Amino acid sequence: MYFDVIVLGSGPGGYVASIRAAQLGMKTALIERESLGGVCLNCGCIPTKSLLNTAKNLQKIRENKDLFGIKNPLEINFSKIISKSRQVVDTMKNGLSFLMKKNGIHVIYGNAKLKNGKKIEIFKNGEKFEECCASHIVIATGSRSKIDNKTIPQDGKKIIGYKEALSLTFLPKRIIIIGSGSVGLEFSYFYHSMGSKVTIIEQCSKLFPNGDEEISDQLKSSFDKRGIQCYVSSFVRGINCNNKEILVDIHTLDRDFSLEADIVISAIGTVSNIEFLGLEEVGVYTKKGFIVVDENYRTNVEGYYAIGDVIEGPSLAHVASHEAIVCIENIKGLNPQKIDYNNIPKCVYCLPEIASVGYTEREAREKGYQIKIGKFPFSALGKSVCDGNTEGFVKVIFDDQYDEWLGCHMIGNHVTDIISEVVVARKLEATNHEIITCIHPHPSLSESILEAIAHAYGKAIHL
Amino acid sequence: MYFDVIVLGSGPGGYVASIRAAQLGMKTALIERESLGGVCLNCGCIPTKSLLNTAKNLQKIRENKDLFGIKNPLEINFSKIISKSRQVVDTMKNGLSFLMKKNGIHVIYGNAKLKNGKKIEIFKNGEKFEECCASHIVIATGSRSKIDNKTIPQDGKKIIGYKEALSLTFLPKRIIIIGSGSVGLEFSYFYHSMGSKVTIIEQCSKLFPNGDEEISDQLKSSFDKRGIQCYVSSFVRGINCNNKEILVDIHTLDRDFSLEADIVISAIGTVSNIEFLGLEEVGVYTKKGFIVVDENYRTNVEGYYAIGDVIEGPSLAHVASHEAIVCIENIKGLNPQKIDYNNIPKCVYCLPEIASVGYTEREAREKGYQIKIGKFPFSALGKSVCDGNTEGFVKVIFDDQYDEWLGCHMIGNHVTDIISEVVVARKLEATNHEIITCIHPHPSLSESILEAIAHAYGKAIHL
Repeated sequence: MYFDVIVLGSGPGGYVASIRAAQLGMKTALIERESLGGVCLNCGCIPTKSLLNTAKNLQKIRENKDLFGIKNPLEINFSKIISKSRQVVDTMKNGLSFLMKKNGIHVIYGNAKLKNGKKIEIFKNGEKFEECCASHIVIATGSRSKIDNKTIPQDGKKIIGYKEALSLTFLPKRIIIIGSGSVGLEFSYFYHSMGSKVTIIEQCSKLFPNGDEEISDQLKSSFDKRGIQCYVSSFVRGINCNNKEILVDIHTLDRDFSLEADIVISAIGTVSNIEFLGLEEVGVYTKKGFIVVDENYRTNVEGYYAIGDVIEGPSLAHVASHEAIVCIENIKGLNPQKIDYNNIPKCVYCLPEIASVGYTEREAREKGYQIKIGKFPFSALGKSVCDGNTEGFVKVIFDDQYDEWLGCHMIGNHVTDIISEVVVARKLEATNHEIITCIHPHPSLSESILEAIAHAYGKAIHL
Repeated sequence: MYFDVIVLGSGPGGYVASIRAAQLGMKTALIERESLGGVCLNCGCIPTKSLLNTAKNLQKIRENKDLFGIKNPLEINFSKIISKSRQVVDTMKNGLSFLMKKNGIHVIYGNAKLKNGKKIEIFKNGEKFEECCASHIVIATGSRSKIDNKTIPQDGKKIIGYKEALSLTFLPKRIIIIGSGSVGLEFSYFYHSMGSKVTIIEQCSKLFPNGDEEISDQLKSSFDKRGIQCYVSSFVRGINCNNKEILVDIHTLDRDFSLEADIVISAIGTVSNIEFLGLEEVGVYTKKGFIVVDENYRTNVEGYYAIGDVIEGPSLAHVASHEAIVCIENIKGLNPQKIDYNNIPKCVYCLPEIASVGYTEREAREKGYQIKIGKFPFSALGKSVCDGNTEGFVKVIFDDQYDEWLGCHMIGNHVTDIISEVVVARKLEATNHEIITCIHPHPSLSESILEAIAHAYGKAIHL
């Protein structure tokens, strides 16, 4: 079968590419080897947000028990919590399935193998069952949990990645989580809320090592207060598994010791799914595990494109989706606007939540900017006090010379809801004055942004 | 005593004016007749948000009971819920008190009376105890519950306004709420959540009559589903009170009937506090119950200014605060930017929440615009499905000719958190294209704004 566009992989890169292509009148096929929606929908963003929402609800219940006559102890119905998250996945997957039909996209389930001449062979259980070709082939096969078989040999049962961590059949008593990027932090908060004893092992000197350092410090203090044990500047030397439990050998700055656990979650990063696609046969360049593309997501071979986690850049669903649109609109000759990779919001949905865009303070200084910094704590914000969410703050970083909004870093409940204002303001090159004079509703979380900027410029009313 | 600036009233207009004046080096006094923070802090925005947060937490508990083994029935500890809201008020008031000291503002408690020559006499219990004068006098005495003594004779016990509704000593079984502006809606949701049988009487043909009609319709359907009885195009003919209960005579389009209640809350609006200030003596003009000012908040008499609910315009805390800043910066000769009264967000914090800015669809059409409308339902949004908050939608209205973002109207949980993005975008005159290409985090509530705009322009991916 011939298509104008064939997309490999149905994650937030691939399915968006296929919908946009169909919208623009191109005959489109989407090839998926597992499940519609990719990692994001099936074992990433979506089910974790459901679990985290449950954990946050539980926290609110604990904080408000006396108002509603709720007695201790609460019984955590872990299997129902997990199955609720699966229902959410099913709901979203049905929606996606509907979108595929509505847009007339031909969905094929199987493993795709690229062949010369823009042909694609499709296999199931090792057997080829279909062949198709296209004028344009978009590779959006995403990524998977990185495996370090030497020190953290995942067995899928006791030493696991994010996929298995999402659907455990029992609530483990003791969990060790290796890595404190967004995946590690979210599982830490979730399992701790459910009642597990959680220990984080982070090899960098701070939790959430890619974030602003003050955010990391606040997070550490929050997690400490909650009772999540965090070892930074630490790493796992090895893991010994017996029938009942796991013994993890840990190196910290102070000492080496062993810790028992029932489950170890490896959250040390991801690797791109670029093997077994036939990239070598068609001659598509790769470098350091990523497919090489230009700013329009074209590979070195005419007619082949790549987007999302298979190319270098932030491995984020929203980035993949926007790359998909830019890629497809380019194929259609629409000359879309290029993505500004310095204006991409990054969110973590544990509690306190983290939301961040632009340069951290350290990055801004390293780039040579003279900076102005403003901060506003949620403890001074009316809405946060009303909601009982006073942990955290908003921090803004401006360039002193030209007033450019270099970065914004937030930590606190619901900050992932308010970061988009900053993204929009930065895109439109707002000055501090334009945001300070912009009337934010009272009482609202977003007032914290205005106040933080006002603080940077000596105009904060509530500090 | 002489001051550069004296501010009358310590609500969000007055206290912000006094802080800004002090920041700018002016010797400042603030006169308050009751309690620091005014209506907003003491019996408005702040305590209601605490109560509503409790009600929302309760709803989440009810929806998630089976996950945590919580048994029916929940015991509503009403007095604890009320006292929690008072604690929030105290926390914020302590903060405000600290800000007054920190900024060196001279706070005087008493009733102010304006005298010629920019003098002010201050009374307590009818006795003058202080006199001061200033170069600039800012009137920010706010507003109070409107009283219609003929048909709704408030007695402060059974027929009450917002102030009493915030601190009832018992949970009434049956409540009739007259008026469905933000105050009426918030109390309706709160008391219904607590277990009261709530009836709303609204004289206009829609709930939330100043909002976009589709928002009103969605709200009506949500309230109907919850079991809040809403009579629109209806009014109260009279109220009969006996010792035990109240009988409210109601006129609806269909029929006239009487309804029993334990409490009636009048939420028919507010009136400005402009009496007894001595405005006549100093010659300050008023019109239709408001002090007349120019765009810099100057009255007709040199040296006298007015801001907030005492002047015409939206009676909103955030408007008063911004008017305060503009007024004071003008006094200082700083030539601040004028307020754009068409870009003021309006929020209601019941569930579903409402957040709105700019023209409604009807207003846009009446002004002669050719419009483009886009809508996105939360039922199609990943984050909302994860959070179990799928009620409601975002609606955007653009001018077809010049792409101006005329209005945005949202209804759903947490929409008050995401409206500021729209305010900022409208202020910066963003085009639809600029917002659609702005990368919003996934999954997040703010994606709904992007999708609604994309829908208006035929580019929605998820519809």
